[in-house]
Amino acid sequence: MILQNDLLLRALKGEELSRPPVWMMRQAGRYLPDYIKLRNQYDFFTRVQTPELACAITLQPVDQVGVDAAIIFSDILVIPQAMGMTVTMEEGKGPLLPEVIKNQADVDALHTDNAAARLDYVMNALSLTKKELNGRVPLIGFAGAPWTLLCYMVEGKGSKTFDKAKQFCLTQPELAHQLLQKITDITIDYLIAQVAAGADTVQVFDSWSGMLSPADFKRFAQPYLMQISDAVSKHAPVILFPKGSWYAMQDISNSSASGIGIDWTVTPQLARELTDNNITIQGNFDPSHLLAPIPQIKKEVKEMIDAFGTTRYIANLGHGIMPNIPVDHAKAFVDAVKEYAK
Amino acid sequence: MILQNDLLLRALKGEELSRPPVWMMRQAGRYLPDYIKLRNQYDFFTRVQTPELACAITLQPVDQVGVDAAIIFSDILVIPQAMGMTVTMEEGKGPLLPEVIKNQADVDALHTDNAAARLDYVMNALSLTKKELNGRVPLIGFAGAPWTLLCYMVEGKGSKTFDKAKQFCLTQPELAHQLLQKITDITIDYLIAQVAAGADTVQVFDSWSGMLSPADFKRFAQPYLMQISDAVSKHAPVILFPKGSWYAMQDISNSSASGIGIDWTVTPQLARELTDNNITIQGNFDPSHLLAPIPQIKKEVKEMIDAFGTTRYIANLGHGIMPNIPVDHAKAFVDAVKEYAK
Repeated sequence: MILQNDLLLRALKGEELSRPPVWMMRQAGRYLPDYIKLRNQYDFFTRVQTPELACAITLQPVDQVGVDAAIIFSDILVIPQAMGMTVTMEEGKGPLLPEVIKNQADVDALHTDNAAARLDYVMNALSLTKKELNGRVPLIGFAGAPWTLLCYMVEGKGSKTFDKAKQFCLTQPELAHQLLQKITDITIDYLIAQVAAGADTVQVFDSWSGMLSPADFKRFAQPYLMQISDAVSKHAPVILFPKGSWYAMQDISNSSASGIGIDWTVTPQLARELTDNNITIQGNFDPSHLLAPIPQIKKEVKEMIDAFGTTRYIANLGHGIMPNIPVDHAKAFVDAVKEYAK
Repeated sequence: MILQNDLLLRALKGEELSRPPVWMMRQAGRYLPDYIKLRNQYDFFTRVQTPELACAITLQPVDQVGVDAAIIFSDILVIPQAMGMTVTMEEGKGPLLPEVIKNQADVDALHTDNAAARLDYVMNALSLTKKELNGRVPLIGFAGAPWTLLCYMVEGKGSKTFDKAKQFCLTQPELAHQLLQKITDITIDYLIAQVAAGADTVQVFDSWSGMLSPADFKRFAQPYLMQISDAVSKHAPVILFPKGSWYAMQDISNSSASGIGIDWTVTPQLARELTDNNITIQGNFDPSHLLAPIPQIKKEVKEMIDAFGTTRYIANLGHGIMPNIPVDHAKAFVDAVKEYAK
């Protein structure tokens, strides 16, 4: 099917564009009243595991906010689930994994074969969404990065410091690498299956990589991000988002990835300097700035695009949109990108 | 009184040293069994407001871990308290300010005169500690940075995003600057009073500055840090710790501050490059690495000093020590610095 709006894919290819594509991390979510209606009817994993619900949620921001891409509604923790771990999600409280990974036996007990098959519901959601989109905009698939998944699998929940995850890596480094490799292998299969099911591109979220020093990132995060990118980029363009790891920009710009997500602590100028225009940059509007008055949002978006340029750039936030963002403010962000003219 | 160990002050002056001084942020705290005994007897603000208790807690890591400096046991939120706000501390849960700053009337209602007098108990704790230290090591005073205090005064508690604080700054910028200036004025008086009471140097903790973009940092954080540094550095050397704001290193290295704290996401090489040896660097061991086996801690400390050098450097963590760090691991960190020989 020919895409009517393929701006995102052209940006990832580095084609010259007169305005960048725009989407927002967590765009299908809690700031949208129609999402909240479904949230009040169905629990989190029911929404994730029911293709019709996931599809409906995925389409909401395309229809209602006008973004240039859809990202499938799902969760990074479906991989630990597919590996046999219990994951529960308490609304507004985040994930809970009651039985964490502590030792060799725990790692050995993880399922690794045929995991993509256990995540059939994601592929079904992608196929259905692809059909419903009917070529309007590209569809983005995603997965969590191995380091970030290890964080949850070892800590069992969110953390300010992820010190238990780091302790696991520092005191049992061989076991940590075994676990990271298992996650990597299954993630590669999973992302390739997502592409086969209809994803036009995939993003890998390393939400907690910024907790790592550059040396630890090179040991416990980067090699696995690279393996995933190298394997999956043969099937579709890959966007890596190592949140907070500005120090990794140069290495990632020289990798097989087509795009890199950055947060708002990096100036556009520095981002261009560090990546030498080798990679498409995605970001980096501070989502809290969507709480500013609309004229200011529009002014800041224009300044952001002025600074990044319209080519090799995807306008986005530097982190997920928050539940307290008014829909018209989110829409102002998207509109400002669409109204941009050199 | 002549200091028997003045390594910290010599490091801040840029004198050539054969090994750096060492202390640890939050060194007087929850990882020490003797601290926990006092915590179980007295609530948080009783410990802070009773000079004998604050002094005893301040001395514990000097006596038991062997650090090269004492830092007075207190809290950054004593300033909002002195300005008339209610602050409660729930053990293990963090601070709570039930009545937050929302509008002009709230800012106008804050007390700004004679605040240092209302914090007499801190000066008494400093004087007593100075006497009890008897010249063994220098004594560090401290305060929270205006941006970080605004965060708590507007949000009322900790936050993942501090989006309410940012919203306040973005939608009421004039009021935000009024508030930041009020905090700055009182902080300057407070820190100068700390020096008069016995502090040999003072550190300003901007714990949440890393949530800000470089542009927002320049608007809402940096000018106030600079005002404090310019005023207080006439009385004693000032260390600024804008946690996470690696992008500000160059500007701060050209300021009146004598030292800058950095976290572990910055390599020693980059830190030296950005500061051009104009300022003493403090940091930047990842406190989670204190959970590694002791021989590895010692190896990593040696590598850290090798990389920073022994001059214009203060060995420290990149953030506060955590409650789950074994005392002998903390001691190994300190010992490794003391054993360092070029």
